[in-house]
Amino acid sequence: MSSRSLHTPAPDAAALRARLDRAARAASAADTDALLVAPGSDLRYLLGQAGGSFERLTTLVVPADGPPALVVPKLEAPGYHDVPTAELGVEILTWVDGEDPYRLVADRLGKPGRVAVSDFTAALHVLALRAALGDAEQTLAGPILRELRMRKDTTEIDALRAAGAAIDRVHAGMGEWLRAGRTEAEVGADIAAAIVAEGHTRADFVIVGSGPNGASPHHDVSDRVIERGDVVVIDIGGPIAEGYNSDSTRTYAIGEPRDADVAGTYAVLQRAQQAAVGAVRPGATAESIDAAAREVIEAAGFGEYFIHRTGHGIGLDVHEEPYIVAGNSLPLEAGMAFSIEPGIYQPGRWGARIEDIVVVTGTGAEAVNTRPHELVVLDA
Amino acid sequence: MSSRSLHTPAPDAAALRARLDRAARAASAADTDALLVAPGSDLRYLLGQAGGSFERLTTLVVPADGPPALVVPKLEAPGYHDVPTAELGVEILTWVDGEDPYRLVADRLGKPGRVAVSDFTAALHVLALRAALGDAEQTLAGPILRELRMRKDTTEIDALRAAGAAIDRVHAGMGEWLRAGRTEAEVGADIAAAIVAEGHTRADFVIVGSGPNGASPHHDVSDRVIERGDVVVIDIGGPIAEGYNSDSTRTYAIGEPRDADVAGTYAVLQRAQQAAVGAVRPGATAESIDAAAREVIEAAGFGEYFIHRTGHGIGLDVHEEPYIVAGNSLPLEAGMAFSIEPGIYQPGRWGARIEDIVVVTGTGAEAVNTRPHELVVLDA
Repeated sequence: MSSRSLHTPAPDAAALRARLDRAARAASAADTDALLVAPGSDLRYLLGQAGGSFERLTTLVVPADGPPALVVPKLEAPGYHDVPTAELGVEILTWVDGEDPYRLVADRLGKPGRVAVSDFTAALHVLALRAALGDAEQTLAGPILRELRMRKDTTEIDALRAAGAAIDRVHAGMGEWLRAGRTEAEVGADIAAAIVAEGHTRADFVIVGSGPNGASPHHDVSDRVIERGDVVVIDIGGPIAEGYNSDSTRTYAIGEPRDADVAGTYAVLQRAQQAAVGAVRPGATAESIDAAAREVIEAAGFGEYFIHRTGHGIGLDVHEEPYIVAGNSLPLEAGMAFSIEPGIYQPGRWGARIEDIVVVTGTGAEAVNTRPHELVVLDA
Repeated sequence: MSSRSLHTPAPDAAALRARLDRAARAASAADTDALLVAPGSDLRYLLGQAGGSFERLTTLVVPADGPPALVVPKLEAPGYHDVPTAELGVEILTWVDGEDPYRLVADRLGKPGRVAVSDFTAALHVLALRAALGDAEQTLAGPILRELRMRKDTTEIDALRAAGAAIDRVHAGMGEWLRAGRTEAEVGADIAAAIVAEGHTRADFVIVGSGPNGASPHHDVSDRVIERGDVVVIDIGGPIAEGYNSDSTRTYAIGEPRDADVAGTYAVLQRAQQAAVGAVRPGATAESIDAAAREVIEAAGFGEYFIHRTGHGIGLDVHEEPYIVAGNSLPLEAGMAFSIEPGIYQPGRWGARIEDIVVVTGTGAEAVNTRPHELVVLDA
């Protein structure tokens, strides 16, 4: 027996109902007969509950026309008792071992021409649904659902603010844990505990990139002992109970930085991050925000050391649309939320990154992270 | 930026090499040209590292003939630096944004006739691989890999023993947290913290089913206040650093049980659990173990109250093969590991379950959980 223990505050029924209606309309507009949504963030977005993701099929059937239905193993159905199914008009269709849940889906849909499965549906179910749905074209629901999910409603923006405040409290306590003589892993364990203590349901990621490790953007933690003079990149986050994620990076120095180029380079990075935040407004393209940061860094001669995109959307997933990257001409809209996190990485020596989550407002950007952006010099 | 911080002790290269060789031979025997293994337990089994599961394609290509290759985004490749790729003969093929990773897989495979994707590969990748591989039949790798994974080697059995000892220590401390006047959720939070404190990397599930809630096998926790006289089902577990899971249930009473039928019914359950453990030996079928427990419960007239299978395999996943269930005629072999967890559920009143993880030995069963099986009466 096993069952995830998650307290999951959910949006109210009216908000969920609106999302389900929008999903059905979007399916119709995409000439798709139904969306089949597996447990995970997409399901949480539509039902207020992420569900479990076990070997047995659970899927929310959202037809372009007609009422939605949740196909779920009978034993797991109690896990959805918080979902206001009656108000949402969602029928619950349970099945027990020995029955064919894929047939249940197929019977519900009749003879569809095109059915979209959510992007993270397990292959196990993707192949069985394909077989059960015969001639229907099988496509991905991601392109349809992301159009909805990247436009946050006020409930979602409030949750992102709460997550931002929680991770800011962790950064505020950094001087307690980040000291010379300790390993990155030791510091990381303390930070992970603080992430939970400050109101996250778990520490999803903890990057402690000290000295040369800071020059590797995806470094996590290691047994390297932090030394006086190190520059340290701290990139941390996790979900709060509502399911929305925090993600914020600050760069610290353990006493005065050893390398003479830190102050000047960091000043460029800080200007780049400000420039990108300042460029955010409805109608600006995602790629223009990336360019705003990149131009400052390139103009200072550090272009080759900024080796990743400027940001990613965030919400129920840590990485989602919109991606703030060259080539993405999506015009920003009020309610979109994403990271702005340029970095400069000096291979073998040190790195720095500054990351805030921002929400597009009617006129610009609201940053949900408000810790100072300067290089934070801690006592060694 | 985000990267999971996981310290992942891995089996040695020789053990991994043997697993990769067995996987290739099994693919060949199944007339399958290659296995494509996504991040997760299957990847951890073969490479010693589960990897991340982001939106970019990572897949381990295991051809029936020829060397394996890990296709991985360049930015995520450092996450695999602990994998002994040279000793394993695994080539690393990195790709960057703008390149087509599915084409990379297709080019590696030439013109395959049949390619199997691992069961939990995301639909996002399943559909793109299908398109890139043209005429190849797409099947599931699960049936091939489970044949390997359900036969544990000594490293794996040692890890299951360590996980069992860790969860036993949590059960040993139960009297400290499980008391009248507290809610199930409060007790569950303390248990979750103890699960981590005793050596798990996280609390994967915590069921605190008090009074009538104990009659619902998949109940997790609620705001119900535990009362004197309650019977409480505690089913808990999680992974240890090696990735292997614990899962153990004991049933407690808060002072003397309120219901007069508890003692007699519980004695039946205890005999059923013992009978099933006693029936385990190489050559016995999975369903015969289920039958051994069920016969005792049915003979006592409680058959209708035992509403689930007797057990599930366990290892890198909490639920895996072999399932101990009617209809599964698989003959057990030394090295297989699974739960034995009969329950008796009295709707609206109380429930009880006893669960140990056992490993099949040369002659019988070794239980990795050793807490007493009696109903544990705690101070109210």
